Amino acid sequence: MELTNSGVNVRGFSCAGWRKGKYGVAMVLSDVEVNCAISVTSNRVKAAPLLVSLDHVKMGKIRGVVANSGNANAYTGVGGVQDAKEMCAFAAGKLRLAAENFLVASTGIIGRRLDMDIVKEGINFVSENLSSSSKASLEAAKAIMTTDTTPKMISVKTSLKDGTTVEIGAIAKGSGMIAPKLHATMLCFITTDAYVPKDKIKKILANSIDQSFNMTVVDGDTSTNDFVALLANGMAGNKDVDDNFVEALNFVTREIAKKIARDGEGATKTIKVKILKAANLEDARKAARTVVGSNLVKASIYGEDLNWGRIIAALGYCGAEFEPEKLSISINGFRLVDKGRVLAIPGTQEFDKAKKSLKKSEVEISVELNSGNASATAYGCDLTPEYVKINSGYTT
Amino acid sequence: MELTNSGVNVRGFSCAGWRKGKYGVAMVLSDVEVNCAISVTSNRVKAAPLLVSLDHVKMGKIRGVVANSGNANAYTGVGGVQDAKEMCAFAAGKLRLAAENFLVASTGIIGRRLDMDIVKEGINFVSENLSSSSKASLEAAKAIMTTDTTPKMISVKTSLKDGTTVEIGAIAKGSGMIAPKLHATMLCFITTDAYVPKDKIKKILANSIDQSFNMTVVDGDTSTNDFVALLANGMAGNKDVDDNFVEALNFVTREIAKKIARDGEGATKTIKVKILKAANLEDARKAARTVVGSNLVKASIYGEDLNWGRIIAALGYCGAEFEPEKLSISINGFRLVDKGRVLAIPGTQEFDKAKKSLKKSEVEISVELNSGNASATAYGCDLTPEYVKINSGYTT
Repeated sequence: MELTNSGVNVRGFSCAGWRKGKYGVAMVLSDVEVNCAISVTSNRVKAAPLLVSLDHVKMGKIRGVVANSGNANAYTGVGGVQDAKEMCAFAAGKLRLAAENFLVASTGIIGRRLDMDIVKEGINFVSENLSSSSKASLEAAKAIMTTDTTPKMISVKTSLKDGTTVEIGAIAKGSGMIAPKLHATMLCFITTDAYVPKDKIKKILANSIDQSFNMTVVDGDTSTNDFVALLANGMAGNKDVDDNFVEALNFVTREIAKKIARDGEGATKTIKVKILKAANLEDARKAARTVVGSNLVKASIYGEDLNWGRIIAALGYCGAEFEPEKLSISINGFRLVDKGRVLAIPGTQEFDKAKKSLKKSEVEISVELNSGNASATAYGCDLTPEYVKINSGYTT
Repeated sequence: MELTNSGVNVRGFSCAGWRKGKYGVAMVLSDVEVNCAISVTSNRVKAAPLLVSLDHVKMGKIRGVVANSGNANAYTGVGGVQDAKEMCAFAAGKLRLAAENFLVASTGIIGRRLDMDIVKEGINFVSENLSSSSKASLEAAKAIMTTDTTPKMISVKTSLKDGTTVEIGAIAKGSGMIAPKLHATMLCFITTDAYVPKDKIKKILANSIDQSFNMTVVDGDTSTNDFVALLANGMAGNKDVDDNFVEALNFVTREIAKKIARDGEGATKTIKVKILKAANLEDARKAARTVVGSNLVKASIYGEDLNWGRIIAALGYCGAEFEPEKLSISINGFRLVDKGRVLAIPGTQEFDKAKKSLKKSEVEISVELNSGNASATAYGCDLTPEYVKINSGYTT
């Protein structure tokens, strides 16, 4: 597996991005119909474009995605659904395609109707400027940003066991409103030239999401608009996918998840929480997500304050099974608690070294629950005064 | 029912408080043995004093409480349990009582052993300075403060249906680490001169907590040390309690819960969320707690930003049943959404009036789910840059 420079523009794909003020429009298009899976928010309130995309996936003739930032088209009623359909139809009209060839996604403020004049201006631009360059992929990534400070894009090549080389690429947005079980206000469009059988693609995407986006926590709030799509156009000519494909896809989604955590609103540090020796996978994931999502853990890491008692408190309320007196906890490789014995006593060398290590921009918390053999890793960021400032005036 | 000035010093009780730097010690004592119920954190990691208190309650000879602030005595192993027992024994020795006459509670940093010299200095002082004055109750409330900015105390008198007048008083601490299901790092000691039958007291306290502390959210983190005790010494002479007692107790716990929400770390505004017409009580409570606990809702209220879409998003992920198109939402009495129809469109009078009302220091969000007849209210506060600052350097 090696990194490439294509972004979503792997073989047989083209894309474009456009911005105007808070609004942005992106399009990703395959030269041929794709096999496709999407995963949308678990929020009971699902944005209009998600409903339309779910319908279009069922029709089975997907060619691409059209997406806008600046307005979520969520809680916009019947009119909002019409707007989302119109986005597909308008894009299709420009390219002599059918509306149902498009998936549609939106991100931005909830509860307001789209400004369709601006959105159409953007669709006009992107449909006339499709390109298969790496630069075009970056423009598309930029077009879907909201509070993101950096565009998010990655691509990798890998060899399948039958010798075929396939490529997987992705663009994504996401920085606030990120929580497990809906990879919140995040959009991620993944493309590949691999052939992925229809009866496998949904499961492969779901499993990949479980170990990446569902393990990323920025603020515990879960969006109405989360949307991940995997478009596989089969142009690599393989007959099936294998573990190498799965591994490469998991790498792509995990790297995107980490980029999102790194770009958490106002974040100054990333936090990685590894839970080892849990009773089962669900416990491991629950514990990892709870620790990485705890406001108090996040704030103490922002302050470079070695308050590891908060890790214990978070483990205690996460619902995972463990015996407190069997816990081991390390930070950045420094052992703080060893099978229940506290090593990090203020004044000791262990304490000072561990505290000093919190100055790093990446903090790794490792916990052994010592109640089984399952493990999981979650990604997040610190909680800063800047996060509050960003989120106290989002609409204005 | 009328407010009184006694605090925990209702008939037959005395108390005292002492402080030295970060440490504080409080004692509350009844002249006679009490009927007693306690409720402790649901966190899997329970602080040592809670384990000792649970044992002592079983022995059934409680006279009072000894408590310290400055150190939680949590995750301190066998030595921590010995320290908690020693707090009871030392207090008992001073007053010619038995160790099992005392409940014991602690609040402060997790994972460090108590400085028993300081704690004993405090116990010496309080056991020699017990007083039944209102001032003493205030000193006891001050002694258990950590990041609290104000001491929390209340008392009320009410008449039972048999004509007896009874009084209920409470002192409490709590400002950060507050979350449902464990009224987090909160201590609350409630006293009454009413006789409360042993077979009822636990249930009455549990129900009262469900509608007060369990509906208060500051930061979603749940402590290892939460502790609520109800001590009833029976000196009022009543034969049983009735609805009037329950009503007065619920008033006391709700007012304390509101004081805690108002004193949320760094808070500038209190938030009250009323959920009406929910399918059932559990849904109503879940929805109220989720909205009042959402970082994004809290941050937008801090910024006086009318971003009501975040309320919709929080309702959508809380797990309660409702049809999005039947929702009604008001803020401070201004209707924003009426049965799914959006009224709060920027530029309209409704929007401007509602936005202006966010300048108030108390914000009330009212939601009709229109899927049943249950209702619930939750209490919280805004999320501010100051909250992060307070929690980024707690240990240092």
